[in-house]
Amino acid sequence: MLQQEGASALSFTRENEHISELLDRMHEVSDLSSLGALAEWDQNTAMPDGAGEMRGDQMATLQGLLHERWTAERLGQLLDELEKPGVQDGLTDADKGLIRESRRGYDKSTKLPRTLVEELARVQAASFEAWRKARTNNDFASFAPWLARTIKLQREIADHFGFDETRYDALLDQYEPGMTTSKLDTLFAPVREVSAALLKRIQDSGNTVDDSCLQGNFSAEKQMALSEAVLRGMGYEFGRGGISRSPHPFTTSFGSPFDVRLTVNPDPEFIQASVMAAIHEGGHALYEQGSASVLARTPLAGGASMGAHESQSRLWENNIGRSLPYWRGQYAAIREAFPEHFANVDVETFARALNKVQPSLIRIEADEVTYNLHIIIRYEMERAMINEEVAVESLPGMWNAKYREYLGIEPDTDSKGILQDVHWSSGMGYFPTYTLGNMYGAQIFHKLHSVFPDFDERLAKGETAFVLNWLQQHMYAYGVTYLPEDLVTRVTGEAPNPDHFVRYLTNKFEKIYSL
Amino acid sequence: MLQQEGASALSFTRENEHISELLDRMHEVSDLSSLGALAEWDQNTAMPDGAGEMRGDQMATLQGLLHERWTAERLGQLLDELEKPGVQDGLTDADKGLIRESRRGYDKSTKLPRTLVEELARVQAASFEAWRKARTNNDFASFAPWLARTIKLQREIADHFGFDETRYDALLDQYEPGMTTSKLDTLFAPVREVSAALLKRIQDSGNTVDDSCLQGNFSAEKQMALSEAVLRGMGYEFGRGGISRSPHPFTTSFGSPFDVRLTVNPDPEFIQASVMAAIHEGGHALYEQGSASVLARTPLAGGASMGAHESQSRLWENNIGRSLPYWRGQYAAIREAFPEHFANVDVETFARALNKVQPSLIRIEADEVTYNLHIIIRYEMERAMINEEVAVESLPGMWNAKYREYLGIEPDTDSKGILQDVHWSSGMGYFPTYTLGNMYGAQIFHKLHSVFPDFDERLAKGETAFVLNWLQQHMYAYGVTYLPEDLVTRVTGEAPNPDHFVRYLTNKFEKIYSL
Repeated sequence: MLQQEGASALSFTRENEHISELLDRMHEVSDLSSLGALAEWDQNTAMPDGAGEMRGDQMATLQGLLHERWTAERLGQLLDELEKPGVQDGLTDADKGLIRESRRGYDKSTKLPRTLVEELARVQAASFEAWRKARTNNDFASFAPWLARTIKLQREIADHFGFDETRYDALLDQYEPGMTTSKLDTLFAPVREVSAALLKRIQDSGNTVDDSCLQGNFSAEKQMALSEAVLRGMGYEFGRGGISRSPHPFTTSFGSPFDVRLTVNPDPEFIQASVMAAIHEGGHALYEQGSASVLARTPLAGGASMGAHESQSRLWENNIGRSLPYWRGQYAAIREAFPEHFANVDVETFARALNKVQPSLIRIEADEVTYNLHIIIRYEMERAMINEEVAVESLPGMWNAKYREYLGIEPDTDSKGILQDVHWSSGMGYFPTYTLGNMYGAQIFHKLHSVFPDFDERLAKGETAFVLNWLQQHMYAYGVTYLPEDLVTRVTGEAPNPDHFVRYLTNKFEKIYSL
Repeated sequence: MLQQEGASALSFTRENEHISELLDRMHEVSDLSSLGALAEWDQNTAMPDGAGEMRGDQMATLQGLLHERWTAERLGQLLDELEKPGVQDGLTDADKGLIRESRRGYDKSTKLPRTLVEELARVQAASFEAWRKARTNNDFASFAPWLARTIKLQREIADHFGFDETRYDALLDQYEPGMTTSKLDTLFAPVREVSAALLKRIQDSGNTVDDSCLQGNFSAEKQMALSEAVLRGMGYEFGRGGISRSPHPFTTSFGSPFDVRLTVNPDPEFIQASVMAAIHEGGHALYEQGSASVLARTPLAGGASMGAHESQSRLWENNIGRSLPYWRGQYAAIREAFPEHFANVDVETFARALNKVQPSLIRIEADEVTYNLHIIIRYEMERAMINEEVAVESLPGMWNAKYREYLGIEPDTDSKGILQDVHWSSGMGYFPTYTLGNMYGAQIFHKLHSVFPDFDERLAKGETAFVLNWLQQHMYAYGVTYLPEDLVTRVTGEAPNPDHFVRYLTNKFEKIYSL
C-alpha cells in the first residue's frame, strides 16, 4: 500500500504542459550544475595548481549561465502560473516538490541584487584568506573586520530574502527549509541539557574508555582497501560511485542517483579516521544513490536538506557504526586488514574504543556526547551576531565563556577557539543542521528498531541490507520531494522530537560508562 | 628581433570594440568546451559505468548550449563586420587568427542543417556499435550498410561545407585547414615510394634487429614512475598537468596552456608501450602547454591542426625518442627503474631495439618505415569511397590488394584488415594528418639540426631543454594563430617539403640495417 502511494507520488505529470516545460528547464540547470560539481571535484582531487586562475574563469562563465537560466523571466511566469489557487490539484507530490524547489532557486537568484551577490563573493574570498592567516597567526583582531562585514552582509541578505519572525530564520532556511529559530530553541534545549548532564556524570564517575587499540601503524593503502570493503558492505554501489583520497573527506554528486563519489583521508597512525569517515561519507552517499531514478536531473534528486543529509551520515556513522552489534558483524574485516595489530583486541574492546568521551576544544574531534554542545555554542553566537547583541571584539570572550560553561574547558588561543571553523568566513545559518541531523538520525534509528525488533541481532550477524532497503524505500527514494520536517514525520510517523536523541544518548553512555 | 615580432603578433587589440566583443564570446565558448573536455576525460578515466546514460544527457545539454553560442546571429554579424575589406589592417596576427578560427567555428555550426547533424550523431553511435561487433565477429557484411550510410553522409557534409576542387577537400579541411587533395598527392608520392623501397631493401638485406630486450616482466607501478620521470625530463610541467592510466593513451586539454593532462597504459610484458607512449603524448602535451598565455580561453590556444599536433608527438617520439643520442642521455633512468633487466643491455642495443622494422597488418603497431604505408592505403581508399569509385562490398578486397602491393602481406581476416580502425564508423578525412605529422616533424627536426649543429652531442649529454625552448618560442607559443602550412613555413623557413622525411628515413634506416 505504502509502496503504491510512493510510486504515484514519485512521478511527474508530463501531460501538464507547464510541468513539462518546468521539467525541461530544471533538467538544463541540473545538468549544468552537475558539470560544475564535477569541475569542483576535479579541482579538489586532481587539478594541477597552475590551472587555478583559469578554472576560476571557467566556473564564473558557468555560474553566469546558470544565473541567466535561474532568473529567466519565463521561469518566473511559469511558477506564477503553477502557484495559482487550485492549479496544483491533481498534481503528484513530485510535481509539487518540483514547483517548490524551482521557486526556491528562482527566489534565491532573483531576490538578491546583483551588487550584493558580487560583494558577497568578493568578501567571502577575502574573508577566507583573512581567516586562514588569522588562524595561523592566532590573530583574531585581523579577522574581526571581515567578520563584521560578513555579519552586515548576512543581515542584508536575510532582509532581501524576508522572514516571518526573526532575521536568523532567513539564513537558516537556506540550508534547512522551513526551520525557524523558535522551533530550534524548543528542539535544542533538551539536547543541551542532557549532553551537559551526561558529560558531568561521566566525569564524576571516574570511569574511562581506553582507545589505545585504535592507534598504531596502519598502511594508507590497506586503509583505503578496508574503507572500500566497509562501503561495499553498507551497500554503497561502486557501479554508480567511486572512492579516492583528498585532504578532507567529502561526498559529492555529479547527478544523483547515478554518480555519487566520495573521498577519505587515511591517518597512518589512527585507524578510526579512515574507517569512521568512510562510514560517515557512505551514509551521505547511500542517501544520494537512493533517489528514485525519475528525480534524476532535477532539483529533487539528492537529500531533503543539510539536516536530513547529516541525519544519514550520523545514523550510519554513530547510531550504527559505533555500536557493538554492528562490529560483531563486521570486525572480521578489520582483523583481516591488520591481523597483527588486532590479534589480541576483542570486538568489545574495539567498539568501546570508538566511544571514548572526552571534552575537547575542537568540534570535528568531538564524541557523541559533547558534539552538540559545540554546535549549540555556535548557534547561540550566530544568533547574537545577527541580532547585533554583541560587539565583534567581544566574541572571543563570549566563545571562551560558553566553552567553560558547557564543556568545562577553555581554549588558550583563539586559533583553537573562535577561529577553528571556516564557516564564518562565508556565512551563517549552517551550524544548526549538524545537531538537527543527530536528532533526526536518532529518531529514525528508533523507528528502525520498532520496525525490526531483531535489529541488533541482524546487525551482529553481519546484515545491513535490511536497513538500507528500508531507508531506501521510506526515505531515500523521495529525494527533495518533501520538506525535511514532513519527511521525518512521514518516515517515523512523528514530528521531529528531541526525546529520541536524549534517550539514545543516555542509554548508550550510561551503559558504556557504567553510570 | 624575432621575439619582438612575436610579442606584438601575440596580443589582441582590445581597443577595437569588435575584437573585444568577439574575444568575450570566444572566452565563453572556450570555457564551456573546456568543461565538456573535463567531463569526457572523467568519463574515460574515473566515471562509474552506471552514470553513462545520465552523462550523455548532461553532455547533450552542454552541446546544445555551445551550439546556441556558435550559431548566435550576433556572432555572424560581428564576423561579417570584421571581414569587410580593409577592416583588418593594423590588427595583430592573433586578432586575424581569432577572426579566422571564429569563422571556422561559426561556419561549422551553421552550414550543416540541424537534421543532418542529428542524423550524423545517430548514425555515428549506431555505426560505432556495428563496427565493434563486426570486428569481434569478423563480419564485414554487417558493417557494410553502416559504412555506406557514412559515405553518403560524409558526401552530404562535404557539399554543405563546400570546396574548390574535390569533395574530399572539404572533409580534410576539418582537421587540416587549408590542406587539399592535390597538395596531398604531391606530398605523399615520395613518401610512399621511399617507404616501399626501403622496406624492400631491408627485407632483401637479411639483416635484422633484435628487440627481445624490450620484453620481460615490468611492474606497472614502476613503468608509471618511469613515464613520469621521462616526461619531467622532456620539460612537461606537472604543475600544469598530470598523468594517469587509461586503456588507450591520450592527451587532453582543459584549457591550454594551463591544464594539459595525459594518460599511458603500461604493458607488463613490453616496456616500449609505456615509455614511447609517454614520449608521444608528452610531445602533444608540450605543444599544448606551450601556447602563449594571452591565447588562453580562445580557439587559438592549442595546436594549429591535427597534422601540426602529430608533428610534435612524432618529433619527440620518433625523431628524438628513437634516436641513440637521446638514449645516451636518458638510459640511466631505464636502468635505474629495472636494474636487473637492463644490467647487461647496453644503450646501443636498447636504442636499436626501438627501431625494429617489420611489416605488420596493424597500423598502430607499425614502425617508422611502414607506418605511412598504412596511412596512404587508408587515404587512397577514403578518396575512392567519397568519389564513389568503388562499391562498398568491394572494399575488403581493395584493402587486401593494397596491403599486398605496398607491404607484401595480406590479412587473413577483415578484423585484422579493413575493420581494424574505429575511424570509419564516424567519418573521413582524418587519416592523412598522421603522415603530414611525420613529414612536418622531420622538416622541423632538420631545422633544429641546422640551428644547433651540436644537436646530437647535447642530447647525448642528457640535455633536452634547448629543444623545448626553441620549439616553444618559434612554434608552440603561436597556438592556432597561423594556418598549419604557414606555421611550418615560419618555423622552418620553407614550405612543407617531403624531402626532409625521405632523407631522414633513408639515412636512419640505412645505418640501422647496414644497407
